[in-house]
Amino acid sequence: MTTEPAFIDLLRTIATDPAARGLDDDAAVLTIGKQALVLTKDMLVEGIHFLPDDPPADIAWKLVAVNASDLAAKGATPLACLTGHSLSRDAGWDAAFAEGLKTALDHHGLALIGGDTVSVPAGQARVLSLTAIGLPSVPVPPSRAGVLAGDGLFVTGTIGDGWAGLSLLQAGKTEPASLVTAYRRPQARLADGPLLAQVTRAMMDVSDGLLIDAARMARASGLAVRIDLAQVPLSPDFVATIGSDQAATLAAATGGDDYQLLFAADAEAHLPIPAARIGGFAEGQGLTLSWNGMPVETPEKLGWQHG
Amino acid sequence: MTTEPAFIDLLRTIATDPAARGLDDDAAVLTIGKQALVLTKDMLVEGIHFLPDDPPADIAWKLVAVNASDLAAKGATPLACLTGHSLSRDAGWDAAFAEGLKTALDHHGLALIGGDTVSVPAGQARVLSLTAIGLPSVPVPPSRAGVLAGDGLFVTGTIGDGWAGLSLLQAGKTEPASLVTAYRRPQARLADGPLLAQVTRAMMDVSDGLLIDAARMARASGLAVRIDLAQVPLSPDFVATIGSDQAATLAAATGGDDYQLLFAADAEAHLPIPAARIGGFAEGQGLTLSWNGMPVETPEKLGWQHG
Repeated sequence: MTTEPAFIDLLRTIATDPAARGLDDDAAVLTIGKQALVLTKDMLVEGIHFLPDDPPADIAWKLVAVNASDLAAKGATPLACLTGHSLSRDAGWDAAFAEGLKTALDHHGLALIGGDTVSVPAGQARVLSLTAIGLPSVPVPPSRAGVLAGDGLFVTGTIGDGWAGLSLLQAGKTEPASLVTAYRRPQARLADGPLLAQVTRAMMDVSDGLLIDAARMARASGLAVRIDLAQVPLSPDFVATIGSDQAATLAAATGGDDYQLLFAADAEAHLPIPAARIGGFAEGQGLTLSWNGMPVETPEKLGWQHG
Repeated sequence: MTTEPAFIDLLRTIATDPAARGLDDDAAVLTIGKQALVLTKDMLVEGIHFLPDDPPADIAWKLVAVNASDLAAKGATPLACLTGHSLSRDAGWDAAFAEGLKTALDHHGLALIGGDTVSVPAGQARVLSLTAIGLPSVPVPPSRAGVLAGDGLFVTGTIGDGWAGLSLLQAGKTEPASLVTAYRRPQARLADGPLLAQVTRAMMDVSDGLLIDAARMARASGLAVRIDLAQVPLSPDFVATIGSDQAATLAAATGGDDYQLLFAADAEAHLPIPAARIGGFAEGQGLTLSWNGMPVETPEKLGWQHG
């Protein structure tokens, strides 16, 4: 069995072009003449990234949103995309997916310009993909590296809602609706990304989990990061359903599927949008957790990894 | 069950941007400012596009070659790509694939700049994809439309070798090696595409079958096309193994997996590279076949379609 990090290590030896950013970022930044482009490609696999009985229009939304979120994390505005689709045994499913895809693409400002449609062996899980192209808002889109010791760590919105929504669905529940919607229809921070790119030293979206993603930013920047879990923003419905104690917050911070923007900026920077300061960076390496200043042991599993 | 054409019809209602070319072409042509880009995305599915015991390095080659062939068909030069990979249960397979990918990308001049790696449920067939970006050699890359009545229909190289190679492998044979290699390591016409784009009225690569692809070019151009099967170029090994009579030629012309360039040009045009003139276009619609001028009934199956 190959793990995702092991395979990416193999690809990294191939991806030596500067546009690849060492395969260490949410997206590639390709410069052609004077035109810079941000490119990302995310896949969704049935049974891994979505549940077999999730509504097809919601899956289409998620496919578009997770790619648009990668663009937003680089401060880019969505432009166009190519889709990869494995045909269903169920024509109604594909039709509902296509209708949902149109809604999602319109919402995210992505023009569908191409792609591929394939049949797959009977009984195969659906494999869906999108390649999205965006236009950057700053000359050098923020990467995961470039953080300075002393910078603050910030995050937009609230954390844990998508994970809570998935947990509810897995338990056969559909309320509170806000949590289920957060899982099925994540909202990429399309407008916030370009604004934040003006002031951030590094930025990424939270897809695999706040802790693992923060640790990746710290590693890419060659620094240590500390997070005070009590500062992690939780939604009212999350608090009412899961709680707001240390265990609930740890679940939120390792659950993933947030699609909030996680960024580093000067601790005193004036931010163009509201964001929670949840920690900061220092010389050294690794991730340190606290709860209102009291040390908390770092869990073994910081988030989601394939393989 | 959704068929590929039915699903593409659904997507066509979404893909209204001119860059999509009505989803009726091998690739998208996206213009940003003054920079035109050619973009294509092709998927390979285990058990559909390749055999489970095909060598992983050959599958990597094919993944790159089929995408590069789409770029060549638009007269574009390969630039960069993003990969989509479903992790294997077999780490050795993934390592061999990655090594083959490097060889193939180097050969085709494609820089790997990003992508996504996912795990899939146990027992799942591998689903591999590539999104490739190229730079066009002419201001308006040739599409499948634009043919004029009276134009000749031309094709590069020889037809049927890939199909013959697959047939040999399915029968447990590995000789003649040239045919097996044509199936496993197709040669995209990278240098020929940009040269031909200077003189073609329409161009595409032959992936699903010469007849179905020629019929698509005719339909996109609103014309009828006739092909004299006796003019379809066959390789010496194909002739020695499969034959050169009408049935053998029909098999070659409907087998697909050729990755030769099929193009329309003025019947008197001076071509920059050798190519066989296999037919021509006229007012009307549909595909008409002949064998040395004698009418041949058009077969029901003109090539490969998913679903």
